[in-house]
Amino acid sequence: MRILGVDPGLRQTGYGLLEVSARGPGLLDAGVIRTSGRALLPSRLCELYSGLVEIISEGRPELIAIEDLFAHSRFPRTAIVMGQVSGVIQLAAAQAGIPIEAIPPASVKRAMVASGQAGKRQVQRMVRRLLALVEEPGTHVADALALALTAVSRRGLPLGRRRSLRGSA
Amino acid sequence: MRILGVDPGLRQTGYGLLEVSARGPGLLDAGVIRTSGRALLPSRLCELYSGLVEIISEGRPELIAIEDLFAHSRFPRTAIVMGQVSGVIQLAAAQAGIPIEAIPPASVKRAMVASGQAGKRQVQRMVRRLLALVEEPGTHVADALALALTAVSRRGLPLGRRRSLRGSA
Repeated sequence: MRILGVDPGLRQTGYGLLEVSARGPGLLDAGVIRTSGRALLPSRLCELYSGLVEIISEGRPELIAIEDLFAHSRFPRTAIVMGQVSGVIQLAAAQAGIPIEAIPPASVKRAMVASGQAGKRQVQRMVRRLLALVEEPGTHVADALALALTAVSRRGLPLGRRRSLRGSA
Repeated sequence: MRILGVDPGLRQTGYGLLEVSARGPGLLDAGVIRTSGRALLPSRLCELYSGLVEIISEGRPELIAIEDLFAHSRFPRTAIVMGQVSGVIQLAAAQAGIPIEAIPPASVKRAMVASGQAGKRQVQRMVRRLLALVEEPGTHVADALALALTAVSRRGLPLGRRRSLRGSA
């Protein structure tokens, strides 16, 4: 199963595509869609949309995991901009017929490090470890990958190679 | 000049298209884009987007006037949903190369009835009068037309036929 994690942001939207098998999740692609800070909002939303449409059409995910925005609701202006960004992402997903799963930040933390109160850095280190990444991913990529890994975990799929306590013999 | 007013809403997005000439603004088209309350958010955003793309491609507006959302920021959950809706509208505008003008509700009231504190009904009655509508437009259509008329007024274009105090002789 292919799962695309998306960490929405107007300036930078992180994404990470996983292929999940019985041997655990493998990284297929990850990166950041940047929009030009000098452009007007509509054209930035356009850049974001085009970038995501390309990633979806090349990566062919079966599920998109995105941050549940309602955690942002303490900062109303941020909430509006995050809404605008997520609206465009959800549109691109719906047009491609791909279901979206909105995951609250606390669920990501619980799935990644077994505590809803964990810090961002702790989650990032765990993402790197679970996917055996050679280099530290940037914040937005790590957040996107954590969302995808949480969707993996929610489906009861393994986050690593399955092993028995009695050894592999 | 053709101006499309859009009153964003998830359930119903009102729109109204005006053709503005020296004789004042004339109504070309108006109505509501509805989305199905039983569908999931991404598919509702998809319905809204498709509806607006069609209206834009048929109506060929040169400007889109939309409500400035930051007035909604007292209700963060509403702000997120309104953000999602407006994100999709702005995307459709940007893809068609049409500039967007975001207008705060108080500016609409000032332009329509010369007071930023006016009630919604008062604005609606004025919209009907300015466009000489035979029937009362629904709330969303009236709001969309008020936005378009405000954009007309901001450009110094006449809201009605120009007349001289000294008569037409």
